[in-house]
Amino acid sequence: MSVVSRVSAIPVVGLPEIVPGDDLGVLIAEQLVVNGTALADGDLVVVAQKVVSKAEGAVQLISAQVPGAQALELAERLGKDARIVQIVLDQSKRVVRAVPGVLIVETVHGFICANAGVDQSNIETEGLVTTLPVDSDRSALVIREVLAEQSGCDVGVLVSDTFNRPWREGSINVAIGVAGFDPLQDLRGTIDDFDREMTTSTVSVADEVASTAQLVMGESGRIPVAIVRGVDWEPGNYLAGRLIRPANRDLFR
Amino acid sequence: MSVVSRVSAIPVVGLPEIVPGDDLGVLIAEQLVVNGTALADGDLVVVAQKVVSKAEGAVQLISAQVPGAQALELAERLGKDARIVQIVLDQSKRVVRAVPGVLIVETVHGFICANAGVDQSNIETEGLVTTLPVDSDRSALVIREVLAEQSGCDVGVLVSDTFNRPWREGSINVAIGVAGFDPLQDLRGTIDDFDREMTTSTVSVADEVASTAQLVMGESGRIPVAIVRGVDWEPGNYLAGRLIRPANRDLFR
Repeated sequence: MSVVSRVSAIPVVGLPEIVPGDDLGVLIAEQLVVNGTALADGDLVVVAQKVVSKAEGAVQLISAQVPGAQALELAERLGKDARIVQIVLDQSKRVVRAVPGVLIVETVHGFICANAGVDQSNIETEGLVTTLPVDSDRSALVIREVLAEQSGCDVGVLVSDTFNRPWREGSINVAIGVAGFDPLQDLRGTIDDFDREMTTSTVSVADEVASTAQLVMGESGRIPVAIVRGVDWEPGNYLAGRLIRPANRDLFR
Repeated sequence: MSVVSRVSAIPVVGLPEIVPGDDLGVLIAEQLVVNGTALADGDLVVVAQKVVSKAEGAVQLISAQVPGAQALELAERLGKDARIVQIVLDQSKRVVRAVPGVLIVETVHGFICANAGVDQSNIETEGLVTTLPVDSDRSALVIREVLAEQSGCDVGVLVSDTFNRPWREGSINVAIGVAGFDPLQDLRGTIDDFDREMTTSTVSVADEVASTAQLVMGESGRIPVAIVRGVDWEPGNYLAGRLIRPANRDLFR
């Protein structure tokens, strides 16, 4: 990263409550006009998973679930609602760790996270949970295309979610969907100040941008969209799967 | 986080090459004057570990090492320099994972990271490596006190380093030392938009701020200090150990 200009995170305040069928790209573009925040080429638009899931109807009714044998066993052992565990399992390829209170899975998308991203907070209807979008890269791409059309600007788009992690306390916001830019910056082969090759291989620009956005978005869901301006990124057609460490390079599955 | 103002990351460009004995707080304060960047109350000053280690003389000469039995065995198995492995082991409590090319340890400070943070890049003298500062919280505190004295401003200070992590590709910048603020934001008990208690417990504000800073600092070491402005933080005397997940809550040690 050779940028020396500032990086700014600008919250997109004032968005309405998102409901199924909403066109997030249009709503964001309209709100930016209201807010007097003009998009610029090179902006990265970070959209919280929760509103993407709501707009796409990625929700499940808890009372409609019929937990199977695995969900019943896990729920008993972990002290969780078996119907919610069933929703988590439906969103998962594999259980990574399960101990009382904690259910870490590999989602159908390949993300390793708690409860497959299934979330009860910030939903207006009791008894509903949101699930991760079916294809967050596709969600990001659609928003990017609408924003390009409405603003004439070439922006990158991220769909983000807050994940916990091993070893360190506190969740951080990470990218689960990307469009228009390379989420990784590869430093292999670049030269340090003393003419030696850098050994740190890659930096997750997308996750760092997601974390930057959260500093203005807040966890409680009141500001689900932020613009991160001034980041040096490489354009291209990449998917967030690029941020998933392959099993053979991951010592902690 | 209820902030709706912008967050900005401002690179502190133009710092000299840091050498042992340098007073980083004074150098940063002087450079900010040169750059016309006045500190403000509430700013968070992020300082890369590498320059803290250089200023504090936290370096080791590779040729001076006499590797012991464990270092020789690990070096052989992992394909690494036994003298560097010895430096890593001297900085560690425990080896967490060791496979060819990868040595993950728990450092004497309690951080779990590759090679105990021992690093050969961006050092002017061949044959030297930097180690993590002995006490990065203390390093941050000293810088904070100097900046308060020189600028009259109440700022928080972070010492940061780039760590790799399980499950996800790409390193991200995290906090290894803090002074003046709470690195975690506890959301337990806060209420979402629909009057339900938030279940996500805590957000690592410090790690998100470190990641924000890296977007202007760059990995290659050219800009080792950045100011992150506009973040809503709680003042207090905390240590970065607060960001380390206790072993009994960590499923991946």
